[in-house]
Amino acid sequence: MTGKMPPRLNVLTLGVRDLPKVRAFYEALGWESLSEGEEFARFQTGGATLALYSLGLLAGEANMRPSEDSGSFGGFTCAVLVEEEGMVDEALETVRVACGRVLAEPVAREWGGRSGYFADPEDNVWELAWMPGATFDEWGGLIWP
Amino acid sequence: MTGKMPPRLNVLTLGVRDLPKVRAFYEALGWESLSEGEEFARFQTGGATLALYSLGLLAGEANMRPSEDSGSFGGFTCAVLVEEEGMVDEALETVRVACGRVLAEPVAREWGGRSGYFADPEDNVWELAWMPGATFDEWGGLIWP
Repeated sequence: MTGKMPPRLNVLTLGVRDLPKVRAFYEALGWESLSEGEEFARFQTGGATLALYSLGLLAGEANMRPSEDSGSFGGFTCAVLVEEEGMVDEALETVRVACGRVLAEPVAREWGGRSGYFADPEDNVWELAWMPGATFDEWGGLIWP
Repeated sequence: MTGKMPPRLNVLTLGVRDLPKVRAFYEALGWESLSEGEEFARFQTGGATLALYSLGLLAGEANMRPSEDSGSFGGFTCAVLVEEEGMVDEALETVRVACGRVLAEPVAREWGGRSGYFADPEDNVWELAWMPGATFDEWGGLIWP
């Protein structure tokens, strides 16, 4: 341990096949897209920045081989935390209006909160969650209870 | 657009097969693990919180089928931003000491910064990046230039 690696998760970049389609989905949630261009977009989000980038280019930069299997679980979930329990269901309603795929209806979780899941058009999975005692910084970043 | 879905990325949860092994890798980077238990861990990180959770349980919660293909690219990258250009190489040295797999040596990027890539023991991909003009909040969250 050298202490030269700051503990940070500043940007999550999703490799996407159809960038305009995926960007339009997040915009339909009411999220503001900040970048132009055919291959990259980012959103002004609290916590980490969400970015979208061409899957092939992203894999190429990282020297990884893109999966052939576009319909399966990528093995990760992103979470949006909300201030009140009822906002989970409200936000999931926003997802439905934006034609997002609801994967799991909100339920009480054993860790004391309430959450549901949805997927973007390329099966990136999001959890919508309320956590008792969670507060937020001025940008919407989570402060753990 | 109903405005009821706050633009936030508060937590990134990686579904992992061998939680103690993956947790030990991030601890070897100098990151502080905050939770106990066999199936969940989280790290005190600036920006979004990094969490680790059993892949099978995570997929089950989200009603997704875990991929059979454990060696391929998950289609996403996480980024750690650092304050100075030289810190990219220093941090990648920390990754090497922690036996992380360096995927791409740092190079100058066309967007004006410098970055390299590495993978954790289960092939979750991280970019280590310096971006001219980037600043940080008190917890290490990125403030875009």
